[in-house]
Amino acid sequence: MSKGLPKRSEDYSLWYNELVKRADLAENSPVRGCMVIKPYGYSIWEKMQAELDRMFKETGHQNAYFPLFIPKSYLSKEASHVEGFAKECAVVTHYRLKNSDDGKSVIVDPDAKLEEELIVRPTSETVIWSTYKNWIQSYRDLPLLVNQWANVVRWEMRTRLFLRTAEFLWQEGHTAHASKQEAIEETVQMMNVYAKFAEDFMALPVVKGVKSENERFAGAENTYCIEAMMQDGKALQAGTSHFLGQNFAKAFDVKFATKEGGLEHVWGTSWGVSTRLMGALIMAHSDDNGLVLPPKLAPNQVVIVPIYRGDEELEKISNKAKEIMAKLRAKGVTVHFDNRDTHKPGWKFAEYELKGVPLRIAMGPRDLENNTIELARRDTLTKETINLSEIELDDYIVKKLDEIQETIYNKAYNFRTEMTTEVNSWDEFQEMLEKKGGFLSAHWDGTSETEDKIKELTKATIRCIPIDQKEEDGNCIFSGKPSKGRVLFAKAY
Amino acid sequence: MSKGLPKRSEDYSLWYNELVKRADLAENSPVRGCMVIKPYGYSIWEKMQAELDRMFKETGHQNAYFPLFIPKSYLSKEASHVEGFAKECAVVTHYRLKNSDDGKSVIVDPDAKLEEELIVRPTSETVIWSTYKNWIQSYRDLPLLVNQWANVVRWEMRTRLFLRTAEFLWQEGHTAHASKQEAIEETVQMMNVYAKFAEDFMALPVVKGVKSENERFAGAENTYCIEAMMQDGKALQAGTSHFLGQNFAKAFDVKFATKEGGLEHVWGTSWGVSTRLMGALIMAHSDDNGLVLPPKLAPNQVVIVPIYRGDEELEKISNKAKEIMAKLRAKGVTVHFDNRDTHKPGWKFAEYELKGVPLRIAMGPRDLENNTIELARRDTLTKETINLSEIELDDYIVKKLDEIQETIYNKAYNFRTEMTTEVNSWDEFQEMLEKKGGFLSAHWDGTSETEDKIKELTKATIRCIPIDQKEEDGNCIFSGKPSKGRVLFAKAY
Ligand SMILES: [Zn+2]
Ligand SMILES: [Zn+2]
Repeated sequence: MSKGLPKRSEDYSLWYNELVKRADLAENSPVRGCMVIKPYGYSIWEKMQAELDRMFKETGHQNAYFPLFIPKSYLSKEASHVEGFAKECAVVTHYRLKNSDDGKSVIVDPDAKLEEELIVRPTSETVIWSTYKNWIQSYRDLPLLVNQWANVVRWEMRTRLFLRTAEFLWQEGHTAHASKQEAIEETVQMMNVYAKFAEDFMALPVVKGVKSENERFAGAENTYCIEAMMQDGKALQAGTSHFLGQNFAKAFDVKFATKEGGLEHVWGTSWGVSTRLMGALIMAHSDDNGLVLPPKLAPNQVVIVPIYRGDEELEKISNKAKEIMAKLRAKGVTVHFDNRDTHKPGWKFAEYELKGVPLRIAMGPRDLENNTIELARRDTLTKETINLSEIELDDYIVKKLDEIQETIYNKAYNFRTEMTTEVNSWDEFQEMLEKKGGFLSAHWDGTSETEDKIKELTKATIRCIPIDQKEEDGNCIFSGKPSKGRVLFAKAY
Repeated sequence: MSKGLPKRSEDYSLWYNELVKRADLAENSPVRGCMVIKPYGYSIWEKMQAELDRMFKETGHQNAYFPLFIPKSYLSKEASHVEGFAKECAVVTHYRLKNSDDGKSVIVDPDAKLEEELIVRPTSETVIWSTYKNWIQSYRDLPLLVNQWANVVRWEMRTRLFLRTAEFLWQEGHTAHASKQEAIEETVQMMNVYAKFAEDFMALPVVKGVKSENERFAGAENTYCIEAMMQDGKALQAGTSHFLGQNFAKAFDVKFATKEGGLEHVWGTSWGVSTRLMGALIMAHSDDNGLVLPPKLAPNQVVIVPIYRGDEELEKISNKAKEIMAKLRAKGVTVHFDNRDTHKPGWKFAEYELKGVPLRIAMGPRDLENNTIELARRDTLTKETINLSEIELDDYIVKKLDEIQETIYNKAYNFRTEMTTEVNSWDEFQEMLEKKGGFLSAHWDGTSETEDKIKELTKATIRCIPIDQKEEDGNCIFSGKPSKGRVLFAKAY
């Protein structure tokens, strides 16, 4: 709190890092690439988890838990899967430490070498499908709709808090179905669940789409995704849902007796979102004063700060504050009364601004006299004085929180609209990417080759082929070859 | 469901293993010592987590998340701590796989060796205290009251589902305080929280006590615990709460500026319960027909099974069932209507008995005629016919669930009372331990030496020195030396 945040316009990346740390969301740990999620950050993640978990259960899924470790041979069973994850695996090779011969330090006991190395799960398809083999015999066992909340490890070389860390928290859904059609429907359903969560709770508009082959999950036949736009004009993949075909069923020999008496491999899906969503939430809405949290995910939706001299004033304000809190809580609003005497009101104002509390109520002696409060909105940084004899404060605040949620969403929506540009030539593509960034809607010839070259030259990738892509004849901006519709390019996190 | 469970009286251990698997609670995974927690088992664990989490938050704690990996040098900083955990550590030594030279397999890349090995956390004191060093400067930063829900790994050689597994799920609280007194109070408070949870939710009576030095946590000055009695006369430690003194603060140099202007090391506690509680829950209450779940932790408190021929009957019963479900849900009762046509009512009855659903409602065509239902209690296996014109079913069921919760608790309480024996000589000790088992309340001279010898000779250990120990002059049952009070011995899980 000693000095202000860096400005977004000056150094967006530094602004993000500093914000994450100063708002007590997360910090780097002594273990390279692993983060500590601090209590305030974790409380936002808990709100996300609760809503997502509810949505998963409403769509018929149950939670379970599978092992942290994957035998190396399991990871290798699906060829493109191991290809995709082998380069970033944490490998357990030993199961014991011992004292060194000189007794001065603790070393890995060479006698405790594992026969087969274990991989710390980067994702759990392999260990889960090896389990499903025993759970699935007949069509009566299908569909199998399971989710797991877990930590996973991918040994990233360059890491950033929440956005890319060696260890991260996530959920991974893994489902098995009797038919291809049903598995595809599940894949699409979960993309829609993610989109609804992003839009309704994170106030984050997303584009639903399908990944190009280059960006597909290792082991999937098709990857659906939701893509969001950050304030610096870079895209962020906020969730993915994979149609696995029969790939893992074949790799792990998972078959079922059909209703008709046959024996077939089952069809699979997997889908996940992670603590990366925290990064998206922070980068999409926050400003140079700190976090801006959508009310639906704010641990405290309202904070009350008393302004007082002496115990007598504090007591009067406290009594009033308690009345207000009781009414707000009865309406389901989370509210915190900060009566610490170790910090001044001005310090507290800055602190709650930094932490993104949607509404701040200030009450001083004059407010008591006049039966008023001062209400400040975090998103717009506007203030108003409210006369409590004229307005039912609890109803007013409930309405105001809804309004804030909507305002934040609309702001992000308008920004994204503004940052989505149709481009029709390679020159235009390069110019727009450099000058403006954002999503570039452009024709593409459908080949990996072209996508690779564009990435090499500009760092932009195809974020997705939008679900609502319009049929439109055109020519690939790079190769000039014919194309039937536009895809979205962007530089991405 | 093909054949009955083994009987407890014949092979308690086999009964437990089979029950865990057949009731769909957990199973062994392809990774040695690691379990898969199946959806039904996990849904019980989720109910436990929800209640515990609420209790932690009500006592002022916040959740956070710390890294899975601990640098080897960190683990070594507290001498007795590393001594306690070194022999059962999973060690990460490499961060990449690659294709073998012949291209036929995937091997660990020798070029990707870590400079310093990482330990998969067996518990997180070291990584957390290294973080607390940066979080704590002044008395204003204290107390720091943090909890984490996480997976941990201890490389156990002999494992049993839920009771002892290489990987398990748990919560670990880690708190820091300005004074010794406050840290001790926190330690005791959390033992009490655990005891309340065990008794009120798990219907499991526990003895609160303090561990002898032998059984103390590696790095603690004092370990408080709750101990429960299983149906085979063996004790089970259900939760521990450690007073860490200044041990970790000194190891990681965590000091704070006192109110008075001094600089002192902080005082610490840590406390945890794990998926082991699932084992305790299963072993304490279940019978030869399957699980018996206390209603407060049962994922489904009531199941409704229709008995019908043809669609018309099913529809009539369904309508009635829906009415009942709506009323029950309005009272907060979880209820499931099993209208599957793939299984017969008899099969379903056995299935829900196996899974421990507290109340089963059966409805057939004659019930429709008479406006009755059949209500069966899982704990007592008793049935009654209820006339719906005479009784408000929802109120009746709510009352009945409370009654079941209490009955299960009382049964376990009476069993434990019966299984707690005062013994006053070494002969009596050995005889009782062999013939009856249970808790043996006996005088002990307070030395580790005596405890070690007793353990060697009988496998019994001191479960705890009960909090409510009465002062009583006596002589150690083994050494004959003077003692001031009785402690509880038992064979234990
Ligand atoms: Zn096969
Ligand atoms: Zn020191």
